[in-house]
Amino acid sequence: MPYHAVVDDYAFMFDHIVGLDQVRATDRFADATDDVTRAILTEAGKMCDEVLAPLQRPGDLHPARLENGVVRTSPGYDQGWKAIAEGGWIGMSADPEYGGMGLPMTVTSAVNEMMSGACLSLQLAPLMSQGQIEALEHHASDAIKQLYLPKLISGEWTGTMNLTEPQAGSDVGALSSKAEDNGDGTYSVSGQKIYISWGDHDLADNVCHLVLARLPGAPAGTKGISLFLVPKYLPDDAGNAGKLNGVKVVSLEHKMGLHGSPTCVMQYDGATGWLVGPEQGGMAAMFTMMNNARLGVGGQGIGVAEGAYQHALAYAMDRKQGRTALEGKDGHTGTIVDHADVRRMLTTMKADIFAARAIALSCAVAIDMTNATGDADWKARAAFLTPIAKAFGTDVGMEVAHTGVQVHGGMGFVEETGAAQFSRDVRVTAIYEGTNGIQAMDLVARKMMDGGDAAGRLLDEVEATAEAAKATLPDLAEAVWNAAESLREATDWLAEQKDLNARFAGAVPYLRAFARVLGGHLHLRAALADKGGAREKLARFYIQRLLPEHVGLLAHAQAGAQDLYALTADDLAA
Amino acid sequence: MPYHAVVDDYAFMFDHIVGLDQVRATDRFADATDDVTRAILTEAGKMCDEVLAPLQRPGDLHPARLENGVVRTSPGYDQGWKAIAEGGWIGMSADPEYGGMGLPMTVTSAVNEMMSGACLSLQLAPLMSQGQIEALEHHASDAIKQLYLPKLISGEWTGTMNLTEPQAGSDVGALSSKAEDNGDGTYSVSGQKIYISWGDHDLADNVCHLVLARLPGAPAGTKGISLFLVPKYLPDDAGNAGKLNGVKVVSLEHKMGLHGSPTCVMQYDGATGWLVGPEQGGMAAMFTMMNNARLGVGGQGIGVAEGAYQHALAYAMDRKQGRTALEGKDGHTGTIVDHADVRRMLTTMKADIFAARAIALSCAVAIDMTNATGDADWKARAAFLTPIAKAFGTDVGMEVAHTGVQVHGGMGFVEETGAAQFSRDVRVTAIYEGTNGIQAMDLVARKMMDGGDAAGRLLDEVEATAEAAKATLPDLAEAVWNAAESLREATDWLAEQKDLNARFAGAVPYLRAFARVLGGHLHLRAALADKGGAREKLARFYIQRLLPEHVGLLAHAQAGAQDLYALTADDLAA
Repeated sequence: MPYHAVVDDYAFMFDHIVGLDQVRATDRFADATDDVTRAILTEAGKMCDEVLAPLQRPGDLHPARLENGVVRTSPGYDQGWKAIAEGGWIGMSADPEYGGMGLPMTVTSAVNEMMSGACLSLQLAPLMSQGQIEALEHHASDAIKQLYLPKLISGEWTGTMNLTEPQAGSDVGALSSKAEDNGDGTYSVSGQKIYISWGDHDLADNVCHLVLARLPGAPAGTKGISLFLVPKYLPDDAGNAGKLNGVKVVSLEHKMGLHGSPTCVMQYDGATGWLVGPEQGGMAAMFTMMNNARLGVGGQGIGVAEGAYQHALAYAMDRKQGRTALEGKDGHTGTIVDHADVRRMLTTMKADIFAARAIALSCAVAIDMTNATGDADWKARAAFLTPIAKAFGTDVGMEVAHTGVQVHGGMGFVEETGAAQFSRDVRVTAIYEGTNGIQAMDLVARKMMDGGDAAGRLLDEVEATAEAAKATLPDLAEAVWNAAESLREATDWLAEQKDLNARFAGAVPYLRAFARVLGGHLHLRAALADKGGAREKLARFYIQRLLPEHVGLLAHAQAGAQDLYALTADDLAA
Repeated sequence: MPYHAVVDDYAFMFDHIVGLDQVRATDRFADATDDVTRAILTEAGKMCDEVLAPLQRPGDLHPARLENGVVRTSPGYDQGWKAIAEGGWIGMSADPEYGGMGLPMTVTSAVNEMMSGACLSLQLAPLMSQGQIEALEHHASDAIKQLYLPKLISGEWTGTMNLTEPQAGSDVGALSSKAEDNGDGTYSVSGQKIYISWGDHDLADNVCHLVLARLPGAPAGTKGISLFLVPKYLPDDAGNAGKLNGVKVVSLEHKMGLHGSPTCVMQYDGATGWLVGPEQGGMAAMFTMMNNARLGVGGQGIGVAEGAYQHALAYAMDRKQGRTALEGKDGHTGTIVDHADVRRMLTTMKADIFAARAIALSCAVAIDMTNATGDADWKARAAFLTPIAKAFGTDVGMEVAHTGVQVHGGMGFVEETGAAQFSRDVRVTAIYEGTNGIQAMDLVARKMMDGGDAAGRLLDEVEATAEAAKATLPDLAEAVWNAAESLREATDWLAEQKDLNARFAGAVPYLRAFARVLGGHLHLRAALADKGGAREKLARFYIQRLLPEHVGLLAHAQAGAQDLYALTADDLAA
């Protein structure tokens, strides 16, 4: 499976679509000049192409396995991890004080996406560490930061997040793991956690778990949850991995895909841990980590989409089958890429990847601007875009991987081809870090507590782009403008619903419609920046063929909950 | 994985939705009374629930394997095959003269769908035999019929179809397998065929291959193709499986799913075969088989959808997670089925299964009416509905299985749960028997050579239903009427395009829009037949929330090919 990181695409997006110039204009990120970010992208791309991409297939064929209580990783993963760690790609956005590069999240997001496209299973490991680094930077004591951050950033140690328990998944407040104060600054943590990605492995000297648990007498629900740092090996006096802590891997899951990533059931039996953030303040600390991870998971979907697209395109440019429409004409390839339906599939893939990537990087810019300026509007924008970036990015990942299989025809269903692996691997991204349904509910509830203001400001911007394009691209401008107006009406309707279920019933189609319209907006920007070029042609395809999907979605989004509950659970089972 | 055949649903469809009464009113199918068909459905359902469903998981875990040139099937498949054969479920619609039941294809389609829902991998075996039986009934000599049909119908022998070669997939005319006349009424067949489902196995005494090959001097392309019957074992004088023929299994494919179904690479080396149909008449004979198989594959998608739906619903009715909207109210279950987004997912699954099933059975009714009356309009309708039934049925299969994984959350990605298997197994149904893209191209080209007349007559019927519903269900009637009018405009537009590529560029969205509108029509019929009942509520959900999808699809369908080819292959690779 060849993979080539699309460095030019990211650079174009930075400059013309998502406005990285605003980020560069801040004091905090003044060093992230065009030269610097392009050098970073190029260097990271090289590693992805040469070191990580060759690990994609071996990870599928030779899954991580549990041997005598220790997880052994797939062949070659040690070299891949080394390249990621030594390249500094774990701590790209981490605090330079602890060894990080202090780069904008926008750049980190692009590099994370590349790594996902090259080898998703392995990329999940640094993504988990990045989330832990950010949580510790914001919430841990200085002593913990001094000890752990340099090691997590260098890749000497790795991080995990432990939320889920068998009875507490989407409802994290139902968790029952316990912690007791040992009276010496440490806590004793006990309980079972499931679905712990990279919960154990042989790539680094230590595995540091951030574990949600309850102190004695804590209130029920999310309010009573505290966060603990529980390393596999307790640090010795020199700060190195010392004595084994009371934590072990019970088993690994047999999954549909992502075989190279060990998904662990973890057992904590009086394991020693340190409080991160205040007692009962676990959820706030965890949300720091989860927001980071949500954008990261959206990027995973986009990365896989890019990999699957390149893979399918290479096949379509090579496979001969039947006479095509271009036979004997300019641009004729003699291969199936010239068949209208194959070209429709490939162009849809490319157009959707652009949309999802531009949305994710727009979200990252909003995060960077929030971090650099503390501005409340940027913060609200980042919060609003995060669930969209996560759900749409992963939906596009699944759809593009699915279409990639279809482009291959019968070969797509045969595992040796590699198309199926993209589809199997990416499936989990719509589930973990909050299912895409949870993302949509977050969008229409929590992220609309402002009455739809953040959404409205985004739509103002969409309409400003349409206004700017009116003179030169009138048909595209009008389509985007009209779509934005329909979305504004739907947003107002949702924001007015006092019964949250009326919103939840249409949350998923609403989120997708929002992504569709933002995609139109960002494609239109690309068309303006590349008049008469390939990007304008791609924008035209998207706006004429894919954007109209929003009409049906918005009808669905505004149907309310009444008809949904009119059909009872008994009716469903009848 | 429990599975329960939905006998009442099929019976309701027969009586109220697809008009099986018209079929029963013909001389040919006068015996298929309500009592008879219900008894058949009940008996078949019992076998599916009790015998086939338990084989679904073992087939995935213990794939068919090649041992010393012979395929060994998954544990328990021999008992499953025996139940299918002894129940008479292979030859349900076959000629009673040769041991068949002579039942309408509508009934066969329902039973095939059930078997697919219970165990897709195994069900593919009788489906292949059914196609061969139909091809032989129509095109083989009396001698071949006398010898082969009773054995195929009883399940003593099985049938396969051999079209594809490495360089000839969608472009079947590119095949290069050869046949030479031996001068004794037999032919000598040589070549390699790939993707041969159930190409070998240990369930029956003989495997009979229908093989497309070229006679010496035959013209290039599909016109030069002849069809041959090539049994694995040559029949001896008593008509039993005798000497091994010159055919062998080279290898089995490692597939994403459908592990219980052996997918063979077959090698023919001067194998003895018998001509079926006239020389160079292979494609016509093969199309008999393929049309049967296309409807059958559509039913596979629907069957898997039903299995995945039941599986997800059972989980949602059991899994507790968070407070739901119905807490403390009537109909409260205390489980996630009461969450709006979960209910939206499950209701979408159920509504789409209804639509796909009703379309497939409508197609089967058209086939039965054609067979019983020879009427040209029924024939045109059957031809028009076949690609829709295939593509939409399998699309719904994939979407519902995908959503089934999502309903399970993290459990869905874990193989033990079984949700992932539905998704992996059903994936191939959108590819084999002509990819769904090929189906859509067939729809807008060959099936519109009448200028859209067959489509127009279907739309007349949709509008008649809307007219009939105007008084009692005005909102639903209006939505369906409007959708039919939009579809009529799009149909006219497509039929007017002289450049086939302008049709092909929108073929897939057009096919889906047609299915969406037919689904609205058939749901509306259900609402009329069940006023105030669960079926009206389901129809309301479909028409309000899912039908509007046609708006975006029809915009896509009418965009032509110009923008598609404006973006060159080089642009796609840039």
